[in-house]
Amino acid sequence: MTRFKATIAYDGTDFSGFQEQPGLRTVQSEIEKVLRRLNSDQELKLQMAGRTDSGVHAYGQVIHFDLEDSRSTERIRFALDTQTPADISIWKLEKVGENFHSRFTAHEKIYEYLLDNSFSRSPFKRRGQAWFRYPLDLELMQEAIKKIEGQHDFEGFTATGGTVEDKVRMISQASVEKIDETSFKFTFRGNGFLYKQVRNMVGTLIKIGNKKMPVEQIDQILRTGNRQLAGPTAHPEGLYLKEVIYHDESK
Amino acid sequence: MTRFKATIAYDGTDFSGFQEQPGLRTVQSEIEKVLRRLNSDQELKLQMAGRTDSGVHAYGQVIHFDLEDSRSTERIRFALDTQTPADISIWKLEKVGENFHSRFTAHEKIYEYLLDNSFSRSPFKRRGQAWFRYPLDLELMQEAIKKIEGQHDFEGFTATGGTVEDKVRMISQASVEKIDETSFKFTFRGNGFLYKQVRNMVGTLIKIGNKKMPVEQIDQILRTGNRQLAGPTAHPEGLYLKEVIYHDESK
Repeated sequence: MTRFKATIAYDGTDFSGFQEQPGLRTVQSEIEKVLRRLNSDQELKLQMAGRTDSGVHAYGQVIHFDLEDSRSTERIRFALDTQTPADISIWKLEKVGENFHSRFTAHEKIYEYLLDNSFSRSPFKRRGQAWFRYPLDLELMQEAIKKIEGQHDFEGFTATGGTVEDKVRMISQASVEKIDETSFKFTFRGNGFLYKQVRNMVGTLIKIGNKKMPVEQIDQILRTGNRQLAGPTAHPEGLYLKEVIYHDESK
Repeated sequence: MTRFKATIAYDGTDFSGFQEQPGLRTVQSEIEKVLRRLNSDQELKLQMAGRTDSGVHAYGQVIHFDLEDSRSTERIRFALDTQTPADISIWKLEKVGENFHSRFTAHEKIYEYLLDNSFSRSPFKRRGQAWFRYPLDLELMQEAIKKIEGQHDFEGFTATGGTVEDKVRMISQASVEKIDETSFKFTFRGNGFLYKQVRNMVGTLIKIGNKKMPVEQIDQILRTGNRQLAGPTAHPEGLYLKEVIYHDESK
């Protein structure tokens, strides 16, 4: 058996998220259908670096699985890429050591959030960007997002009902920029993210950019952990798992 | 009655082209449904600058129609924008003189063609870019596309079965560039385009870029009008009607 690491992309629009759910179309079940064929019709389970919710996209999601190494790596990649549906792409496949684990050995993740800020929603951005039609002040959002960098308890930015006890995480980089005439890109790099954390942070930053919340409220949310102080959860269609970073020794 | 000029965008993926066709979902019929509501439930026909085929997009298509001027222009635009489906956007509406005609007074049009040249088709580009997975030489395509500029008889680049007799057109600008790591953008500006002309020119340029056809064959196609010498028709999903240009006096 050989362990394979695959770097994959998917348009999350028509999936009920990444993780397998009975009766629903998910990224995991579509890939495992093809893995089964490559595994002499025996079930083959994959592990992913991070679940993504319904409607959320990825262009650097990482998965791993163990398979008999009887074909060339490129042949397996090509089979996976072309036999999965058009909204999934398997663009990289590598052999890794048996200690590699897509989730447990991941060091950091990078998420991006794209927001269409035009007054008339673009038909070309509607699947891959969320939409907010009211004015946004870039400088206010930049000031606010810098307060998110560093090690904090992110309780105030997570959804209630999570099972994780320790909500302290390190965000090593957080930034927002304009990427064209009408769209903004938010980027967050960190060692772990809580359930709906990125979308809650973006929803809060949008309120600040729209001048419906003072910049300083970020400090208060981080200090008190009070979810009521934060903005609404931003829509899923703007969110991308961009990259999963591993230490070299984990390969 | 007032004449209104609207500048619109649409994602052509799920339309059977622009023009009305019984029983099919077209851009024209979706817009006319809303126009009828705005016109006291009386049928209201629109005119468009140029038809686009099934799967072809636009972000600067121009239409016009005549409507009682009893509401503000922004109110009419907003109603049209929000009451049409999400894959149509009405982003600009202006009052124009009665001599304005979206098709007949158009001076030039600009078309763009986007091509994803990655070896694994991007799930995010599959609706808005065509795909060609084999190598393309940018310089060869740039050399070839320059030969298309100028006034020529484009018989060799049109689909058979067209009804237009005179196939001489002026292309004032034609260029190709790389827009990111894997995609190319072709741009054509001219005073008129024959049926499938842009897609046939792109199909030919792809063959040249892939070194399956010499650059000089462009001259031969233009000289002889022989459709057999040109490349295949490129797929519709890469094509955009980008802009329709009017002389100021035609407004």
